[in-house]
Amino acid sequence: MTTHKSRRRPRQRLKLRRVAIDTYRENVAYLNRECEIYRAEGFQALSKVTIAADSHRIHALLNVVDDPAIVGPGELGLAEQAFDQLGLAEGTAVSVGHAEPPISMDAVRRKIAGEPLKLEDFRAITRDIVENRYSKMEMAAFLVASGQSGLDREEILYLTRAMTESGERLRWHEPLVADKHCIGGIPGNRTSMLVVPIVAAHGTLMPKTSSRAITSPAGTADTMEVLARVDLPPAEMHRVVRRERACLAWGGTAKLAPVDDILIAVERPLGIDSQGQMVASILSKKLAAGSTHLLLDIPVGPTAKVRHMREALHLRKLFEYVGDRLGLHIEVIITDGIQPIGRGIGPVLEARDVMAVLHNEPEAPQDLRQKALRLAGRILEFDPDVRGGTGYAIARDILDSGRALAKMLAIIEAQGRQKRHAEPGHLTEEIRAPRDGVVSAIDNYQMSKIARLAGAPMDKGAGVDLLRKLGDPVRKGDPLYRIHAEFPADFDFAHNLAGRDSGYRIGERVEESGLNL
Amino acid sequence: MTTHKSRRRPRQRLKLRRVAIDTYRENVAYLNRECEIYRAEGFQALSKVTIAADSHRIHALLNVVDDPAIVGPGELGLAEQAFDQLGLAEGTAVSVGHAEPPISMDAVRRKIAGEPLKLEDFRAITRDIVENRYSKMEMAAFLVASGQSGLDREEILYLTRAMTESGERLRWHEPLVADKHCIGGIPGNRTSMLVVPIVAAHGTLMPKTSSRAITSPAGTADTMEVLARVDLPPAEMHRVVRRERACLAWGGTAKLAPVDDILIAVERPLGIDSQGQMVASILSKKLAAGSTHLLLDIPVGPTAKVRHMREALHLRKLFEYVGDRLGLHIEVIITDGIQPIGRGIGPVLEARDVMAVLHNEPEAPQDLRQKALRLAGRILEFDPDVRGGTGYAIARDILDSGRALAKMLAIIEAQGRQKRHAEPGHLTEEIRAPRDGVVSAIDNYQMSKIARLAGAPMDKGAGVDLLRKLGDPVRKGDPLYRIHAEFPADFDFAHNLAGRDSGYRIGERVEESGLNL
Repeated sequence: MTTHKSRRRPRQRLKLRRVAIDTYRENVAYLNRECEIYRAEGFQALSKVTIAADSHRIHALLNVVDDPAIVGPGELGLAEQAFDQLGLAEGTAVSVGHAEPPISMDAVRRKIAGEPLKLEDFRAITRDIVENRYSKMEMAAFLVASGQSGLDREEILYLTRAMTESGERLRWHEPLVADKHCIGGIPGNRTSMLVVPIVAAHGTLMPKTSSRAITSPAGTADTMEVLARVDLPPAEMHRVVRRERACLAWGGTAKLAPVDDILIAVERPLGIDSQGQMVASILSKKLAAGSTHLLLDIPVGPTAKVRHMREALHLRKLFEYVGDRLGLHIEVIITDGIQPIGRGIGPVLEARDVMAVLHNEPEAPQDLRQKALRLAGRILEFDPDVRGGTGYAIARDILDSGRALAKMLAIIEAQGRQKRHAEPGHLTEEIRAPRDGVVSAIDNYQMSKIARLAGAPMDKGAGVDLLRKLGDPVRKGDPLYRIHAEFPADFDFAHNLAGRDSGYRIGERVEESGLNL
Repeated sequence: MTTHKSRRRPRQRLKLRRVAIDTYRENVAYLNRECEIYRAEGFQALSKVTIAADSHRIHALLNVVDDPAIVGPGELGLAEQAFDQLGLAEGTAVSVGHAEPPISMDAVRRKIAGEPLKLEDFRAITRDIVENRYSKMEMAAFLVASGQSGLDREEILYLTRAMTESGERLRWHEPLVADKHCIGGIPGNRTSMLVVPIVAAHGTLMPKTSSRAITSPAGTADTMEVLARVDLPPAEMHRVVRRERACLAWGGTAKLAPVDDILIAVERPLGIDSQGQMVASILSKKLAAGSTHLLLDIPVGPTAKVRHMREALHLRKLFEYVGDRLGLHIEVIITDGIQPIGRGIGPVLEARDVMAVLHNEPEAPQDLRQKALRLAGRILEFDPDVRGGTGYAIARDILDSGRALAKMLAIIEAQGRQKRHAEPGHLTEEIRAPRDGVVSAIDNYQMSKIARLAGAPMDKGAGVDLLRKLGDPVRKGDPLYRIHAEFPADFDFAHNLAGRDSGYRIGERVEESGLNL
């Protein structure tokens, strides 16, 4: 046997190549099976790799390629997201090595074992997640571990703080920066697009950032986008807000609490939902957006996200606890989530409802108008100069006088009006009552699903238009709602689902009494 | 608006194409971004897809391709594993659609909420996993949920049964089918290759199936493969066993408890380890292999998997409880896991030690010999004709007389002797004592890691050869062990790790007293 004197050899260098595959929120790297470094280390060792050149460094999951047309032996391929994140040109010499599991997985394993975590643990975890050191499996482990034994209130506070610190933070340099949020689950519930112009017309600062829909048929950002540009870079958002005291923008460009977006990509497909994660997710976004006062809408109903009043009360206290300690003034309002709000479900249809309310059209949906006035009234009372109990009347006055409409049009112009006027999808079908009676129940969840299958929110005109609401009398054959789609395949999916379960029940009387709020 | 009459259109058909990418235990499908079906449904809806043609159907994760050279708009690409699993020719027309989350995820969510699961739940989960309906994220959720609140004994029993039923089952039609298993963690602990020929030479049936190394530097299958073929299809395994009363084969070809292999691919990178999962994993494999009597080796030591005697005792009772209820006779033996067994760590080096013991060479490692005799003696006593307490002497007699060697050579011939004689890796370096003293501690974990970095088990000749064991006196500069590698890059990795922490401590006396077993 010969004795080999070890030389300090540099790690093998490979030529960077972009592989035109979109792996959606997971960094993937491709190595040719004949590549020497792969042969030396093998799959198990290399299932997660670090790719580095100078100060650039990313982590990625490894796929092994047997076709040199995709990636050759001397090359390292990166899927689109990973390539963009590394930020280097094709052909750059990069080194690749085994990626150690993220150190903060130790904390996750302690959480799995039932131990409460400290602020430093949550900071380490969110940092590692933002830096793409976590695989989706590892994120799932964190989410399940913190969902199951449940985070205690202190841990939710720590997690919120760590998530807030994980990204950028907007600063408005004013003592009152108003915000609102609904925990979701109610289709058509597009109140922000009414509340923001009312509040801004009064003069209160309300720079609203919203998300796009993830599991719902329309988010505020998707709906506003029917009317105006919403992907405003931070500088432009500031310009709009300086001019109009408000905006209705997509929050994604501002990099607010980015760890939240990453976790959601795992949480949603798993269908796991923990109160602690929800509170941290919402409040970290609001804190990062620079809000000082937040009105939180928790709808309760048999097919809403929150089904019982006691659950809503527990959630309210959790929000208040964390908000108080992080310097965010929170008021929680528990609302009736028994059925969809307004008529339209889907971006174009919901934008139509919003504009009808702003125009004070007689056929505008009154439930949407009432709810928006109630929320706007509460937000107006954040203003120390507004006397308690008078907010609703002020809001109604602003809406009825057309000042809210004028403000909305000004915001649309400032953000950039959409040139093309979007129409509801041209493929339509009416779903009809199977018998005489009254509409006794409408399933929020099923209506969302039908609207999504019809193509919402991707196809702006797709969705569902409700022609009857709870308590309305119907005769057999009367139309209950109309499906709109833009593509035949989607149309068929939605049609088939509505055929299996229309989401409406026709009975003698309304089945649930709602909250009588 | 026009009313569109829905036609019952078939789902869009795409031409199947094999994409030469190995995605390692995860089915991945590729759709071109311009493909109509992708445009209609989008990423969120399609992140998990079902691909079907006739009765063939698989589930896969979706990646979106922007390069028609990889996959064109009218094509559906499948990565190698998914393509093989679907089992259809390139060019076949296949349909693709949204894959609903597996129904059994409801049970996982109930487990996350802390509910105990029933046999039917575990059956549904393992069925869905084997049919590739679970993403790695979903498997991680299941593993964390069943690791954290912990499975109770009944649940472990149910999981074991469900895992056993998830694959094929070998049947030997004899009342005594002996098996042994070590829970692992001790490098060099290659006793099966001694126990099997001893027991078979006595006449007891011992058709041993083993795994390849996952996180260790060598599994029994990797080491046996140095000497003989191990990937025997079930028919050939039966032929070998009929002739020699034993085999030493890789269990992978027999599809025993396949759900276990899938879960391990998630469990290991996460570094989560639950006793319940371990018990179910081991016992389901043994039951599927048709074993009736099992000797279980639990090594205990400060750097072993099990670190305290009380933990070993708890584990023993768990194994006994599940074994008793599933008709598998289990005896548990708790052994000294304070340091590696034998000298070699890595397939070639361990095979060399095994053959030295079988040849009764004076320099053969005595600890390996003693441990193998002890285990073999206990297994021989499973035979009703062997008087209690005489097993060890019978085993020693079989080994000393050369009958064990003859049986091993016969098994090697029956399985197919390796033509090429494998040598230890030619790149070598000796790690030396930093001062005078005695070897006071050897870290099992660190020695495994150095051997793995050197290339074991992929490179058969790579590994570590221990030249000193616990309690041996050394002078400064004496060699402690020798690293063997086949490739310079691996050699450097191993060398650097050993330089940072050699895994040996030199002191005044041995630090731990072991178990004095």
